[in-house]
Order: sequence, then C-alpha cells, then structure tokens
Amino acid sequence: MTWQKTFTLEKRSKGCYLVTDEISSEIRPGLDGVQIGMLFLFIQHTSAALTVNENYDKGGHMDMALDSIVPENLNWRHTDEGPDVSHTKTSLVGTSISIPITEGRLNLGTWQGIYLTEFRHKPHSRRVVATILFVSSFLSRLDQFSLPIQSASS
Amino acid sequence: MTWQKTFTLEKRSKGCYLVTDEISSEIRPGLDGVQIGMLFLFIQHTSAALTVNENYDKGGHMDMALDSIVPENLNWRHTDEGPDVSHTKTSLVGTSISIPITEGRLNLGTWQGIYLTEFRHKPHSRRVVATILFVSSFLSRLDQFSLPIQSASS
Amino acid sequence: MTWQKTFTLEKRSKGCYLVTDEISSEIRPGLDGVQIGMLFLFIQHTSAALTVNENYDKGGHMDMALDSIVPENLNWRHTDEGPDVSHTKTSLVGTSISIPITEGRLNLGTWQGIYLTEFRHKPHSRRVVATILFVSSFLSRLDQFSLPIQSASS
Repeated sequence: MTWQKTFTLEKRSKGCYLVTDEISSEIRPGLDGVQIGMLFLFIQHTSAALTVNENYDKGGHMDMALDSIVPENLNWRHTDEGPDVSHTKTSLVGTSISIPITEGRLNLGTWQGIYLTEFRHKPHSRRVVATILFVSSFLSRLDQFSLPIQSASS
Repeated sequence: MTWQKTFTLEKRSKGCYLVTDEISSEIRPGLDGVQIGMLFLFIQHTSAALTVNENYDKGGHMDMALDSIVPENLNWRHTDEGPDVSHTKTSLVGTSISIPITEGRLNLGTWQGIYLTEFRHKPHSRRVVATILFVSSFLSRLDQFSLPIQSASS
Repeated sequence: MTWQKTFTLEKRSKGCYLVTDEISSEIRPGLDGVQIGMLFLFIQHTSAALTVNENYDKGGHMDMALDSIVPENLNWRHTDEGPDVSHTKTSLVGTSISIPITEGRLNLGTWQGIYLTEFRHKPHSRRVVATILFVSSFLSRLDQFSLPIQSASS
C-alpha cells in the first residue's frame, strides 16, 4: 500500500530547525493503520535539506558546523560567479530521509528528531513530498514479521 | 508492486554531471502506470555517487566545492598509503537517492535534477540499480490516498 | 509485502567498521523468498551513522578523512558549549541506507560493503531497524519485471 501527500513547511531563514511535530501533524492520516512500513520525505528544493539528528540540540550547533565545513567565502576556482554554498550543503546533507514505521508511529530513537536545514538567508517556505509504503494488518505475512522484543505482540 | 532494472551510465571522467534525461529514459517502462510510489537509485561503486541538485548549474560548482571540502592532498595520518578522497566523497554524497513518483512521473522540484558525481580522473562507466515500489490504480486505498492540491483528481 | 526487525550491533569505540556480515546474518530471514525489493537500514542514534563504501579498505581511511573534514577542535562560534562533532558527522554521513534486493540477496557492487561509522570515543552498542519492502514471486508483475542481463531468467 502507498500513501502520499505534498505539504509546505512554514517560512524560515538560514538555520537548522526541529520540524518533527510539524511533519508528524501533516502525515498523521498516513500513519493510521500502518503496521510496518517506511516514510520517505523528499524536499523539492536545492538550497534546503532534511536530516535526522539530536532533538535536544535545536539545530544551533549543526548550522555552525555546516558553515565551518562549507564556508560562505569558499574559494571557487575557475569561475567568475559567486559561491553557491547552499547547493553544496544540500548534496552533503541530502534532499530525502527514510524513517521506519512500526505500529502506526515513526520508529525514531529516543534522541532523534527531524530537521529542516535552511541554507538561504532570506526566509523561504519549502515543499516536502511525504510517501508512505506499508503493509496493513490484513496483508502482513506473519511468518516474516518481526518486531523489537519490547513491543512483541501476539 | 515492484519494478527493477540495472543499467550502465555512459563513461565520464571526474566531475558532476546532470543525468536526469539518461536515467529517465532507462526507467520509463517502470514509471508506466504508477499512480504513487518511490524510485530508488543505487550506484554499485565506491568512487562515484548520486545526488539531487540544481539542474541549471550543470555541476561545475559542486565538483569544485567537493574538492575544497575533501582536498586531494588531504593529510592522511597514521598511514603510508596515498589518499583516497574518492571513497570519502562517496560517503558524504551517498550511493543512493530516493525520489517520489506521482501519476507516472518523477515528482522533482522545478529546479531539481539527478547528478552523477564521478570522483575518478580516468573515465569510468557506472552501474546503477533502479527499483520502483508502487501501487497501481486498481490497488490504491482511496481513503488513504492524497495528492497535491494542484493535481487533485476524482 | 513488508518485513521488519530491530537488532543491536556489537559494542565499538570510535572508528569505521565493515558490518556487512553482521547485518546479513540479522536480516537473512527477511531476504528469504524476496524476488525484488529494497532493504532500508536505519540507525536509532545521533552520534553514529551507516554508509556503503569500499569493502577492502576496512574503514581506517574514512575515519581519518571524517576527522579532517569535521575536526574535533572545530571552532564553534557563539556558544560556550564544547563541540559536538559527532552530530555533525551523523548528518553528513546519514542515519539510513537503502540497498536493492535481487533474487534473495543484497545487490551490492563487487567492492561495496556496509559500514558502521561510530563517532563516540567510548564503546557503544547501536540499535538498527531493518525494513524490507518487496514483492514475492507470486505477486510480481512479469511484464514490468526486469533483471540485469547476466542473470536473466525465463
């Protein structure tokens, strides 16, 4: 089975933002009744990215670190055009993330959250395509179905 | 439903190359009749990678940026072997990409394209495994099916 | 069809480790009978990552390269807190990998292997959620099914 929805994240300027709640609220109807499956989030832009990271940090460190690794004054050889560090960061962080779904909820680790990394200084709204591929209960092959020990069910 | 095909990209030397058309032509039969689903592209090599980025840039900036971040003269400690920057770049950019499919076409943003990043100086052909997981129209659970507002259908 | 299992990788201190065999052994029951499909591995932590890279290298080079790119003494601006290079490396390398499955086996390239990149100095055990989405033989749409030339079957 497949579920898909395109939505827009709220406008933000340069930085890393914890968007777990904003995304969870958008995809809630798609998680309903999913026994096991996968969520794929794809951002339709080239100067913003999605990543899974520490939900306590709130993004400040990551934004600074990315600026250290891909400095805005990076010396671009063989070109008269100004640097476009945003595109480079996008390919390093990535335009999509994949998260397992178990019994109707995102199976993130205790400290994990979903981040939007916005690389443009000016605020932008960003479009995300969420796709869920799953098996619902009546189709699951029980002989090939396995859950973490702590959530084993009959 | 699942569709899979392995194909080879044309030989290229070091650089970043827009391969959206080359890949679209290989996967066209797999997109046919897919209402919603996901395309997974996996490159079977360790010194080339795949990424989604700006389709206008044509790859020049990204190649330069990756050379700045992972310089070919990187100081490798505790080893007599020469640097292998290609492997490092591969893990930073990634060996696979995931793209949503909506109504038979890749649901990329307006400015997005698929790039091959070739890290070897000598030209190489690269093998890619394309896998499509999808629901065709007769299986879709309409109650859990949602499309972007602008392409809503009955 | 969908198969999912959560397991723990053995305790390791900072470094890059080839874990193809350890993971293959955990997911063997899930690969059984899979004609074509995808394996998704997701690590539930923010200071360790998963990547596909050269299976001959054994990880030494990659660990050194990541230390060069994200140095432990990275100059963190606007903060009194110490650097957390682990989180940054996690977003660059990534928390998940996707590998195609063909005829019951991982369809990796000849030189590819699965790596755990552990960023903490102190040894940690790491939890991984493996999800397999697939079609088994009786469901495959033969008209949309294609295999590499060298393994073509009737």
